[in-house]
Amino acid sequence: MDIGLVGVGRMGAGIARHWLKAGHRVVAHDLDRDALAVLARDGVEPVDDLDALVAALPAPRTVWTMLPAGAPTRGVTAFLEDALAAGDLLIDGGNTNFHESVERAGRCRDRGLRFLDVGTSSGLLGRSDGYCLMVGGDPDLAAETMPLLRAIAPDGGCRYVGPSGSGHYVKMVHNGIEYGLLEAYAEGFEVLKASDYSLDLPAIAELWRHNSLVQSRLLDLLARKLDEDPELSKYSDYVEDLGTGRWTVLEAIDKDVPTPAITAALLTRLRSRQDRSFGGQVLSSLREEFGGHVVDRPTGPVS
Amino acid sequence: MDIGLVGVGRMGAGIARHWLKAGHRVVAHDLDRDALAVLARDGVEPVDDLDALVAALPAPRTVWTMLPAGAPTRGVTAFLEDALAAGDLLIDGGNTNFHESVERAGRCRDRGLRFLDVGTSSGLLGRSDGYCLMVGGDPDLAAETMPLLRAIAPDGGCRYVGPSGSGHYVKMVHNGIEYGLLEAYAEGFEVLKASDYSLDLPAIAELWRHNSLVQSRLLDLLARKLDEDPELSKYSDYVEDLGTGRWTVLEAIDKDVPTPAITAALLTRLRSRQDRSFGGQVLSSLREEFGGHVVDRPTGPVS
Amino acid sequence: MDIGLVGVGRMGAGIARHWLKAGHRVVAHDLDRDALAVLARDGVEPVDDLDALVAALPAPRTVWTMLPAGAPTRGVTAFLEDALAAGDLLIDGGNTNFHESVERAGRCRDRGLRFLDVGTSSGLLGRSDGYCLMVGGDPDLAAETMPLLRAIAPDGGCRYVGPSGSGHYVKMVHNGIEYGLLEAYAEGFEVLKASDYSLDLPAIAELWRHNSLVQSRLLDLLARKLDEDPELSKYSDYVEDLGTGRWTVLEAIDKDVPTPAITAALLTRLRSRQDRSFGGQVLSSLREEFGGHVVDRPTGPVS
Amino acid sequence: MDIGLVGVGRMGAGIARHWLKAGHRVVAHDLDRDALAVLARDGVEPVDDLDALVAALPAPRTVWTMLPAGAPTRGVTAFLEDALAAGDLLIDGGNTNFHESVERAGRCRDRGLRFLDVGTSSGLLGRSDGYCLMVGGDPDLAAETMPLLRAIAPDGGCRYVGPSGSGHYVKMVHNGIEYGLLEAYAEGFEVLKASDYSLDLPAIAELWRHNSLVQSRLLDLLARKLDEDPELSKYSDYVEDLGTGRWTVLEAIDKDVPTPAITAALLTRLRSRQDRSFGGQVLSSLREEFGGHVVDRPTGPVS
Repeated sequence: MDIGLVGVGRMGAGIARHWLKAGHRVVAHDLDRDALAVLARDGVEPVDDLDALVAALPAPRTVWTMLPAGAPTRGVTAFLEDALAAGDLLIDGGNTNFHESVERAGRCRDRGLRFLDVGTSSGLLGRSDGYCLMVGGDPDLAAETMPLLRAIAPDGGCRYVGPSGSGHYVKMVHNGIEYGLLEAYAEGFEVLKASDYSLDLPAIAELWRHNSLVQSRLLDLLARKLDEDPELSKYSDYVEDLGTGRWTVLEAIDKDVPTPAITAALLTRLRSRQDRSFGGQVLSSLREEFGGHVVDRPTGPVS
Repeated sequence: MDIGLVGVGRMGAGIARHWLKAGHRVVAHDLDRDALAVLARDGVEPVDDLDALVAALPAPRTVWTMLPAGAPTRGVTAFLEDALAAGDLLIDGGNTNFHESVERAGRCRDRGLRFLDVGTSSGLLGRSDGYCLMVGGDPDLAAETMPLLRAIAPDGGCRYVGPSGSGHYVKMVHNGIEYGLLEAYAEGFEVLKASDYSLDLPAIAELWRHNSLVQSRLLDLLARKLDEDPELSKYSDYVEDLGTGRWTVLEAIDKDVPTPAITAALLTRLRSRQDRSFGGQVLSSLREEFGGHVVDRPTGPVS
Repeated sequence: MDIGLVGVGRMGAGIARHWLKAGHRVVAHDLDRDALAVLARDGVEPVDDLDALVAALPAPRTVWTMLPAGAPTRGVTAFLEDALAAGDLLIDGGNTNFHESVERAGRCRDRGLRFLDVGTSSGLLGRSDGYCLMVGGDPDLAAETMPLLRAIAPDGGCRYVGPSGSGHYVKMVHNGIEYGLLEAYAEGFEVLKASDYSLDLPAIAELWRHNSLVQSRLLDLLARKLDEDPELSKYSDYVEDLGTGRWTVLEAIDKDVPTPAITAALLTRLRSRQDRSFGGQVLSSLREEFGGHVVDRPTGPVS
Repeated sequence: MDIGLVGVGRMGAGIARHWLKAGHRVVAHDLDRDALAVLARDGVEPVDDLDALVAALPAPRTVWTMLPAGAPTRGVTAFLEDALAAGDLLIDGGNTNFHESVERAGRCRDRGLRFLDVGTSSGLLGRSDGYCLMVGGDPDLAAETMPLLRAIAPDGGCRYVGPSGSGHYVKMVHNGIEYGLLEAYAEGFEVLKASDYSLDLPAIAELWRHNSLVQSRLLDLLARKLDEDPELSKYSDYVEDLGTGRWTVLEAIDKDVPTPAITAALLTRLRSRQDRSFGGQVLSSLREEFGGHVVDRPTGPVS
């Protein structure tokens, strides 16, 4: 089969290689010429722009976008909505907000295009084992597209989950859960590190990988990182968030569902990125005002 | 080897069978005669009381207690501290508070007894695969006891983690993390259930078990439970906690480590057990007082 | 001056009386004929519908809407946007979402109408003391309208805060803070009630009203409620939220500001309204699966 | 009356002056000779050590300690428990943990001393208006001591709340509530500051002091601080905690009472004092591992 791929970053490149291995032809575009060149050596056909991508594919075309959510996905998709022809299939494999995917599906329908929103886990790990795909859109279209999807998501890692937007919705909640799982490990290991016992964190992470109830793929990764450096000294404690976690919280609030742990995970990330908390300054100023508590050596010991 | 075992509940019974399989002799006591009788059919030697247990074992004795934390463990252990002789080995495999284990180790030392505190994961799963053991106490003693421990914790699932109390300490944090992980899944699936999409929760749990970043042993179990009944209708939302989760929070606060997600998991359990929240009544009374907000149909729709 | 008032509920009625007292003429409409009739006895001129309201006022008209946020405000305002004439002034004194007020201001501008969004605290208390008004919109318009506003918000309780939407924005944050304050008192008094000491809650609330750092208007109200009934037995623990609290959380997340306490207050309200938490059922089912923890008497004592 | 006072810091000095004004004789000791000297000019009799303090008072003596909780209070009190004679009265006006006060009361009883634990709010404000006292101990003793207490806590600001320890218990919860109130204001003003509207924070704080539902003593103080400097630029966001807040959380957990907002306030303070969060580093390392998310410019914009 012929597939157009826009975006050959970490995820896109891994997906392309799975398709190549399965015998598909992959025509790809990316602004990063070096990344494209690397993939070209493996058999991907690089093209210089989106027009060339569309021209290089036989109708009806299939184009998979694998781009950062927001402006990059919006820009490329807007172009493709115009450039593609009736009957062509557009698949967004990124972490797009599900509301946006519902709108995109509507626009595609109006123009005779076919559209699938496919939540795609799990990053770098997918390069070897394949991905986990949550597929939203028309059920017949999804069924028809399964061979292409299963080529990158073997062994049960691909499933149709519902109408347009639901693929990205399920992936959003998947990531919300991931926020909570990550935060639970982060907090637990911070307690272990602060313990009066001098604990061997890499050994404990490794130990828990065997028969314990906290076994998980994330723990496997953490054991590896701690084994490389028990202090994780090259990592800052500044933690980004790219949308899905906060959307999970917004959706939960919208549905009156309390999600305190996932929310705590999100707020911890927000806090990690503040150089200075004005709220903290409010507290300090009030404590001085009512109690005369002056903190002139902020990094000193707490009495 | 000869081993005395006190407590043949879910965990104790599984451990006994691993020892039997490894060729050890197991003498066991439990107040639950039926549970003892079942194990006796498998080759465990039942005894009627702790005196008989001590009498049935050749010196130096090894006795493993596998009892609920708190009063049950304290009662049995207090008896054994008196009844055992110098050189005997007492092992607490339960979820005892690590502060208590440190004290117990001190008392045992004073009386010439040897003591290990062994955090033991993971419940029913250990029956087939074996357990994950976190071993605290004297390092030489731990090394000497390894054959016995490895018989129930194969394949890397057993490790010495530090001096007395550290076995239960590491298990405590393990359980604190487990609280956070469980809560993250619970919240995520509650969002999925509340979604405007009619999502197939069992199918999604199963899907995520393949290649996704939220793969874990807990997710395996959840997929099984949802497959049995997508509504989980036989389960109440009343959730107990048995000590380790709250101790993790207390230890974190004691060490000035913020653990918002694990704490949220604990507080959610506390809330789940309240028939009525007085705090909620305070809020309702104030909202009526300042806003005239009367809620006369508490289960009705929220405007 | 002549003022049209739509909505004579708890807030609207209080406002009308302040205007009457200040010598203004108030023409009012409400679907609740009884409420209107009560006010009519005090001198308000009741009208049967919005057309009559518009007809009863001399141009340029001033109409204040004091309605629940959302559909009621939207419906009435949409009508008035059509029915009013260029130069007329529309004031929304309710708890409308600030995004909506920004849009409304734009539409009014397009039609030559003038518009102010006025956040109005504090409910029933304003009947006697007057209100606290946070005024958003054109600064000259706000200045011109001050006499009317100050008539209901004496003694510093009225201020222009910024362009359109900012009045409702500041009120939104005011309410978010209020959520946090209420929750702090609610939690503290629940701890006092759970104490091993048999504490006299009404007496403590009253005591704290004198010279303590937790003195506040809300504490004054709470002392009164506890004095009426220390058990608050007529109040359920079901707590509504009407928009502003959750919008504060959404705005905070949108601006990357962590607000854990206000968020906790919101999530506690969401939880209070659940008959059953599916998340809790997920936890129970997993605890049974991995630990054999069966909770068959959900209201029994916790071991 | 003759009163011995140990500790003439911010609180002690204010209390001494109230007693002087009421005609009492105050003999005081403090390691800070300068603070003592200042008070001496107002009429307090300074003494060089605790022996001299005891010697300077006629039996039965009354000694009030106003010291930081923990070691300072423990050290002085241990000395006084020995040095005072049967029938003497010891009053701890500090923020001592209530468990410790219960033990102290027991020891005093054994030695024939009389003891009261008196929670004392509200810091610097008490200098002018007087304090709010929560009195724990024997009810007859408390009644007998009322004249002395009311001299520093006029107008309803003094009350017997229960047996030994309850004075400090009620003060502990008072401070827990205060943590929640402070955090609510801090978060709200941080949202206001982050708003797209350029809001005048000092003006808003001042506005809310009039007729609004968030009126409080703490808001009065905050309005003053913001008026001095809207940026609060001389204050760091490093916030100490001195015991009572965390004890409230521990007590709440011990009593199975969920207090998410007060707990959030505590955890926010813990976080404010971390130079680096190991948990954050765990998150960063995992995000790199599974997603290739490298954060090389931690202070840069978030995509």
